Amino acid sequence: MHLYDVSIAPLLRNLQNLKHILQQGELYAEQKKVAPEVLLNSRLSVDMYPLTNQVQLVSDMSKGAGARLAGLAIPQYADDETSFAMLYARIDKTVDFLAQIQPEQLAGAESKQVVLTIRKAELSFTGLDYLEKWVMPNVYFHSTTAYNILRHLGVPLGKTDYLGQKR
Amino acid sequence: MHLYDVSIAPLLRNLQNLKHILQQGELYAEQKKVAPEVLLNSRLSVDMYPLTNQVQLVSDMSKGAGARLAGLAIPQYADDETSFAMLYARIDKTVDFLAQIQPEQLAGAESKQVVLTIRKAELSFTGLDYLEKWVMPNVYFHSTTAYNILRHLGVPLGKTDYLGQKR
Repeated sequence: MHLYDVSIAPLLRNLQNLKHILQQGELYAEQKKVAPEVLLNSRLSVDMYPLTNQVQLVSDMSKGAGARLAGLAIPQYADDETSFAMLYARIDKTVDFLAQIQPEQLAGAESKQVVLTIRKAELSFTGLDYLEKWVMPNVYFHSTTAYNILRHLGVPLGKTDYLGQKR
Repeated sequence: MHLYDVSIAPLLRNLQNLKHILQQGELYAEQKKVAPEVLLNSRLSVDMYPLTNQVQLVSDMSKGAGARLAGLAIPQYADDETSFAMLYARIDKTVDFLAQIQPEQLAGAESKQVVLTIRKAELSFTGLDYLEKWVMPNVYFHSTTAYNILRHLGVPLGKTDYLGQKR
């Protein structure tokens, strides 16, 4: 078992599945003849993030993990997406960034120190704790919430869309 | 890095966080003077599982993973929970089962064959693929959906409730 198999590999799969889920949402908006923004701005509760932000957060968590574990600069994106097409592009560039990381770039990353600043508080992790206590729960949280927002709106989706075809 | 750190350890944390989330839901029902069943039977879409089943599925996925990876019999539970107290007991016995698994019982589990039968179709995985392509995405999916059902109903919850206090 290599750190890559429990970090970059599942992050890449999840991003690709998220893109597929969003594509079903875009198709549904077309079929229902509603503006895509109706879906993109939907949220499950007034103080939860809408669909667009859920996707941005999956991207942020994924590129942050790849960069920190591989010792690379974190790519900065503008968070200016206002359409499905722009969200696909955001996912694609996150995938491209992660896909260039090779397993050997993660050598020793499980025990390196990772410090996050969250609302002015510092969180210090080992690389492995950062991955298991922060990145993966967060990534699946925001992907599932994107899925749940679309399901709540009536988009026909099933678990296979979330997990991906190749199990 | 040991397989335990990316399987049993995060599964245990997630179950404990899920119990905490449910406790906030039970408290909210009391404060709002509504029957707990209103929450337990809530779902985000007519063809999604309600809260009770989401919790059962987290339990099923977690005990199945522990048992299959450690080579133990999978504990069988009756799926008869009808109250928050019964769901807590379900979570507690799942935690007790996983907590008795020692890291050395997982030796070689990443490459053993795991075969699941899902709706009459057989899915064959290596132990590591079973964990990364099936168990973890599913466990976080159902925990997040439990969280989202409660958030949608107005229960005051934040990301820290989902991630747990100790990051």
